[in-house]
Amino acid sequence: MSKVVVLTGGVGGAKLVLGLSHIVAGADLTAIVNTGDDFRHLGLHVSPDIDTLLYTLSGKANAQQGWGREGESWAFMEALRELGGEDWFLLGDGDLALHVLRSDALARGETLSQITAGFAARWGIGTRILPMSDDPVATMLDTDEGRLAFQRYFVERRCAPAVSAIDFAGASSAVPAGGVEEAILAADAVIVAPSNPFLSVDPLLAVPAIRAALARTAAPVVAVSPLVGGQAVKGPTAKLMGELGIAVDNDAIARHYAGVIDGLLIDSGDDCGVAGLAIGRCPTLMSSLDDKVRVARAALALAEGLRP
Amino acid sequence: MSKVVVLTGGVGGAKLVLGLSHIVAGADLTAIVNTGDDFRHLGLHVSPDIDTLLYTLSGKANAQQGWGREGESWAFMEALRELGGEDWFLLGDGDLALHVLRSDALARGETLSQITAGFAARWGIGTRILPMSDDPVATMLDTDEGRLAFQRYFVERRCAPAVSAIDFAGASSAVPAGGVEEAILAADAVIVAPSNPFLSVDPLLAVPAIRAALARTAAPVVAVSPLVGGQAVKGPTAKLMGELGIAVDNDAIARHYAGVIDGLLIDSGDDCGVAGLAIGRCPTLMSSLDDKVRVARAALALAEGLRP
Repeated sequence: MSKVVVLTGGVGGAKLVLGLSHIVAGADLTAIVNTGDDFRHLGLHVSPDIDTLLYTLSGKANAQQGWGREGESWAFMEALRELGGEDWFLLGDGDLALHVLRSDALARGETLSQITAGFAARWGIGTRILPMSDDPVATMLDTDEGRLAFQRYFVERRCAPAVSAIDFAGASSAVPAGGVEEAILAADAVIVAPSNPFLSVDPLLAVPAIRAALARTAAPVVAVSPLVGGQAVKGPTAKLMGELGIAVDNDAIARHYAGVIDGLLIDSGDDCGVAGLAIGRCPTLMSSLDDKVRVARAALALAEGLRP
Repeated sequence: MSKVVVLTGGVGGAKLVLGLSHIVAGADLTAIVNTGDDFRHLGLHVSPDIDTLLYTLSGKANAQQGWGREGESWAFMEALRELGGEDWFLLGDGDLALHVLRSDALARGETLSQITAGFAARWGIGTRILPMSDDPVATMLDTDEGRLAFQRYFVERRCAPAVSAIDFAGASSAVPAGGVEEAILAADAVIVAPSNPFLSVDPLLAVPAIRAALARTAAPVVAVSPLVGGQAVKGPTAKLMGELGIAVDNDAIARHYAGVIDGLLIDSGDDCGVAGLAIGRCPTLMSSLDDKVRVARAALALAEGLRP
């Protein structure tokens, strides 16, 4: 399959993108990345999902924690704490270089797309990494502790508050970044990574022109379920689904993506009984690189079988 | 002597301020600090002389290099270089905490004075550290390589360009920071630290209300000469004086400060033949803490003898 697009959030999605990058050469693979998690912290523009992609695809990611850089040091945080600075969001010494350069470039009028492309080129990343939009979109949660921005909920409060609703401020007027629509329309397959559907994929789908491009593209759209053995691998997916009154199963995932996807890749032992959807199966837990390549191959095979 | 004000730049001046702080208790000592070296780098507001004071008075300074923090690490710079960021100005991992917090606070409308006082309080510094002004002042040099901002000349070009003129952009309309004029007028002695007269002290004197307060105060004003054994201890003082056609001797220093100072403390072996100026002598090279306290005592003694 020559041209593949993957819609992705951070940690879990990055694993699949890494797998795909071992199958789909260079710029034939385009990762369109959630920016609803982006925020300004201490005056710096942080793009967590883009950075996770950059670190993962350049071999710099801390494999154990799933975010940040391998061999990171924390002298900045130590000095920050001593000065009474907010320390709920960890900024590693090396990681800071991205945030400082990005913030400075944004202030000088560069776009997030341009900046991301520059970092990727510096690190020799062949896969195209596109932010979903250069316009600001903010994932916001209505919770029993009030309305919270994503990082406050996810990092500071460790997903403890009960969520009653999620929205994506700015999404309805956001324009896709340059190349996003074109990549979706020109793709031979579109894969939705096993990122959190509600927090990491929905922001992408909330950008009207991205949703429209997914409807228009001739390419099959295949999602990889974030559930493995009927459970969320990590993160707040299961807790969140419960709070939103959604059953934690693949039928619910399938219904959530109804109208967007043509196929769903689920874990070997799991089921999905939603009619009219092509179902693929493979062991979808991604620990080793072999796992990631296997899941990527299975997703592409499912899409291949759905091509017109 | 109960209330002492010291006008100071960075490295050399900070040594004298440290000496003074061992004699003059807590907030009875006010350091008014040059901000002509301040600049924005990678979008961050850097205040080199204020930081040198903060590090020196809190015991965090790197004694060997004279600037920056003891035990500093450089992971940020390494990551920055890998991304092609400008690396001519070194930002240590711990040092970054000050720049990030300061930049963020300035963007939120805090003044440099408030921010500096906050850092000093956090680190238990008793001496009052006041920026000369909360308004921007930029030391600019006309050189044989064109007009250069201070840090470009001093750090990036290592003082190599020949200087034909120096000016302080913004100084003539700058208002002294809160407390600066009051401290000068209420002082029992004003000491001009042995910082570079042309680059580090002149910016202070270029703020009209500071110069006026020095003229009005009843306190004797005593400078400590930056020359030791007839030579500049370090930095570009001697080279600069040569380029500006000024002899490298205490007479020239005395004439430069004419109308501002009442006394000049010079090194034991040196001379000064300018009439109408009280001359004090002591070994003025400051290596050990004892040296710094000795020079501070000598400067205060010279001022004491000049009190009305």
